[in-house]
Amino acid sequence: MAEHKSFGSDNHAGAHEAVVNAVIAANTGDATAYGEDEWTRRATARLREIFQAEGDVFFVFNGSAANVLGLSLLLRRYEAVICAETAHIHTDECGAAEQILGTKLLTVPSPDGKVTLAGIERHLHGRGDEHHAQPGAVAITQTTELGTCYTLEELRTISDFCRANDLRLFIDGARLANAAAHLDCSLADLAQYADVLSFGGTKNGAIGAEAVVVMRPDLVADVKYLRKQQLQLASKMRFLSAQFLALMEDDLWRQSAAHANQMAQRLYSEIL
Amino acid sequence: MAEHKSFGSDNHAGAHEAVVNAVIAANTGDATAYGEDEWTRRATARLREIFQAEGDVFFVFNGSAANVLGLSLLLRRYEAVICAETAHIHTDECGAAEQILGTKLLTVPSPDGKVTLAGIERHLHGRGDEHHAQPGAVAITQTTELGTCYTLEELRTISDFCRANDLRLFIDGARLANAAAHLDCSLADLAQYADVLSFGGTKNGAIGAEAVVVMRPDLVADVKYLRKQQLQLASKMRFLSAQFLALMEDDLWRQSAAHANQMAQRLYSEIL
Amino acid sequence: MAEHKSFGSDNHAGAHEAVVNAVIAANTGDATAYGEDEWTRRATARLREIFQAEGDVFFVFNGSAANVLGLSLLLRRYEAVICAETAHIHTDECGAAEQILGTKLLTVPSPDGKVTLAGIERHLHGRGDEHHAQPGAVAITQTTELGTCYTLEELRTISDFCRANDLRLFIDGARLANAAAHLDCSLADLAQYADVLSFGGTKNGAIGAEAVVVMRPDLVADVKYLRKQQLQLASKMRFLSAQFLALMEDDLWRQSAAHANQMAQRLYSEIL
Amino acid sequence: MAEHKSFGSDNHAGAHEAVVNAVIAANTGDATAYGEDEWTRRATARLREIFQAEGDVFFVFNGSAANVLGLSLLLRRYEAVICAETAHIHTDECGAAEQILGTKLLTVPSPDGKVTLAGIERHLHGRGDEHHAQPGAVAITQTTELGTCYTLEELRTISDFCRANDLRLFIDGARLANAAAHLDCSLADLAQYADVLSFGGTKNGAIGAEAVVVMRPDLVADVKYLRKQQLQLASKMRFLSAQFLALMEDDLWRQSAAHANQMAQRLYSEIL
Repeated sequence: MAEHKSFGSDNHAGAHEAVVNAVIAANTGDATAYGEDEWTRRATARLREIFQAEGDVFFVFNGSAANVLGLSLLLRRYEAVICAETAHIHTDECGAAEQILGTKLLTVPSPDGKVTLAGIERHLHGRGDEHHAQPGAVAITQTTELGTCYTLEELRTISDFCRANDLRLFIDGARLANAAAHLDCSLADLAQYADVLSFGGTKNGAIGAEAVVVMRPDLVADVKYLRKQQLQLASKMRFLSAQFLALMEDDLWRQSAAHANQMAQRLYSEIL
Repeated sequence: MAEHKSFGSDNHAGAHEAVVNAVIAANTGDATAYGEDEWTRRATARLREIFQAEGDVFFVFNGSAANVLGLSLLLRRYEAVICAETAHIHTDECGAAEQILGTKLLTVPSPDGKVTLAGIERHLHGRGDEHHAQPGAVAITQTTELGTCYTLEELRTISDFCRANDLRLFIDGARLANAAAHLDCSLADLAQYADVLSFGGTKNGAIGAEAVVVMRPDLVADVKYLRKQQLQLASKMRFLSAQFLALMEDDLWRQSAAHANQMAQRLYSEIL
Repeated sequence: MAEHKSFGSDNHAGAHEAVVNAVIAANTGDATAYGEDEWTRRATARLREIFQAEGDVFFVFNGSAANVLGLSLLLRRYEAVICAETAHIHTDECGAAEQILGTKLLTVPSPDGKVTLAGIERHLHGRGDEHHAQPGAVAITQTTELGTCYTLEELRTISDFCRANDLRLFIDGARLANAAAHLDCSLADLAQYADVLSFGGTKNGAIGAEAVVVMRPDLVADVKYLRKQQLQLASKMRFLSAQFLALMEDDLWRQSAAHANQMAQRLYSEIL
Repeated sequence: MAEHKSFGSDNHAGAHEAVVNAVIAANTGDATAYGEDEWTRRATARLREIFQAEGDVFFVFNGSAANVLGLSLLLRRYEAVICAETAHIHTDECGAAEQILGTKLLTVPSPDGKVTLAGIERHLHGRGDEHHAQPGAVAITQTTELGTCYTLEELRTISDFCRANDLRLFIDGARLANAAAHLDCSLADLAQYADVLSFGGTKNGAIGAEAVVVMRPDLVADVKYLRKQQLQLASKMRFLSAQFLALMEDDLWRQSAAHANQMAQRLYSEIL
């Protein structure tokens, strides 16, 4: 298997050495399954603190799962989701949200990958009319699928609009680390605007692990059942948790994201 | 994190050293994501050969997912599943099959964890009557949730009955290795009776990986879309595949299963 | 089409003349569609009053739909339903609840068609454990599928148990009229124990119409969207509403139910 | 209830006198429920003949149900539907297709309500790639939601394209009668291009009844179970069937549709 560099996706990269070492270190004796272990307790506590999450943190296997689980916490049974036409949940998940949640995605035109207030508003005209799909949440991606990044001010504006309009806000954070590195802000600075968000490990050096960060405590009770039904409960959970412990140690996540941002910028400059 | 032995579940154990080493070895440079890598090609080829599967092999993250994906290949949109009242899909998956597939589970009384022909037949009386749930598949578990094991003759009888009655047969093989070790047969000997089966890695020394083995070639085309929708597509797939490569190397899977069987037998003898 | 009497089902009977006349009378000029008409306003107001429902009343096309809509109001996305093994939703709706709601039905052994407290309690042992299906509602049928009838005292006991155990109570009232006639009580006497119940028109002389009676006001807001998604919004709603106006006029529903009860009793006596 | 004319929708109109009379006439003695009656046998036979359907005909309660049932016959479990952005299934059914079928709707820009080949083709680029929703059917509406009408040539072109590209074709025929009247063609002329279509009764003078016309015989076996699960099985089916018998008698459907077309044309002319 020849050594080469792929520009196909961050997923073509392997795992960071520190992550692999953490997994090896976690492979020590027996530990209670399904998350009742020491690694999971420490990793979720650490993430709750970093995100200043009053709710809790839950690990899942991949990014689509983080999106579906996150949205399932925010939607009444019949509600729809507003997202950019470029959103990963709309274009790259084979219709998983529709299939697993039965939800409709209402798309917003988006040349730069961002959702606009005007785009959200357009989908509110049918509220209260049972013929129309009823939006219950807005899903944005940070950093977006087009590589753009909402400013904190933009996030605040969207969040305020959502709160004023009974819309919950989900952030697909598959590349949240890159956003925090780019904006030179904390993860909590980003997370404060969301009801639920995901925090991607896989594109940030993990073997394969994503965190669903639940900011609101009232949403926590249902998560474990939904995670189980959505086929995301790892039996040997410690091996997911250990990956996040490694990523959070000495802000490895931020170093890797900053490096990735620099390389992307360099690639962009060179091919111009 | 104190060293101790847990009797709670095979999932309380860590991973086999060979599995961990295989994951480390797979962490070499870039590789195409989503299964288009050398490890996945080799692992699936090896499993196709071992199972003598004319279809194909697909990796997923956990046992519930293997069951749901496997059943989704076998059921028409409206069909129900016949299973033992003790089946994992019925008692231990939080209703995932109902939630994700919309399928009804029709249970068979089972003091020993096995499905009986009489039990299956009881659910066929309403066939053709739209008021009744229409069984499309039988799901059995090998080794069963109660630790019993179908003989090859028993499997043949159930399989023959299913084929004669337009019922497809799914085997939940979370502990299939233990059955093969116990019966001293090959995995293909067991698999020949199923349309689709799962082959559990996690309880057999993996970090976390299960295989869905599709015996019938006509069922293969749909799998990848269903796996993606069911949130089971690993981006860095090589790390799942490498685990199976390690398990299959020199029949490690069989050695571990035989050892587990012996330890269970010993535990049983001692506590009698 | 020869005149004969069928003992197959109440559905083999035609419609009461008063119902047909009410439909004819409602066929007068134009009226706003989808329930914004005078007949619907009057019929729902009348039923709210008769049932002493603080919520509201919604018409649907058939009994399975009334059950599915009613349950969908009471269940969190992941929750299961406890019901008798003889329940119509379990045995006679082709798995509609599983298919449309993704819910699991947890059955209670029931020689007489009634759900027992012991049977309910058995399904509560796994509460809080994500591996187990989590019951969110109990569904009972009054009169039951076996022709038995809960006393008001039995209903109160079940209702009290449910309220004490965070279980919502749904009553499948496809034959609720027969129960009220048999117990010589009001519909409100029966309804007070439920969170949501259905009130069957079709087996009580209607052409085809059922009412979903929502007792709790906090459940009302979601109904219209769920009814629409569940394919139960009648465009020319007045023709459903007019049927109920006829049934409620001079307690026609009670007269017909009492007559049906007498005839069933006579049939029973004669064939003994 | 004052006499007035509503321009809100065809659903604001009442029912045709002939339809009401047919319902009255069908209210004669007992008849087997669930469609095993003489009226249903005659009505479905008549419609099979008129549509030259090699499959069969099934009645449901409303237009959304006809669309959902029709599509459910045509889609593999994971497949998506291509439709116009103006399609009723997309804009006016509260997300029922997503909720009940789990399917994604892939929209085609459409200033005139019609689906174009270019619009369909745009959604085929991701075929075979599991990240993309996989289109399995095209849904068009005839007459469209904007009042335009596909010519037979346009239908043929779309149908040919679909057959050449493994896409099944569904026609939402809530206003199919108006199209046949406008094009001065038979219903079979329109139906020949579809795999499944609906034929709307409600907007054509019925009290409330729609037909799902299955052109392909291989699709028939599953319909009754799907109809039941989708809450569309009328117990006193004769009262739906009788409505269609009245509409088909002496081509009443065509007379009413031609009249409606004329009135719409006149309205259009007057308000210009």
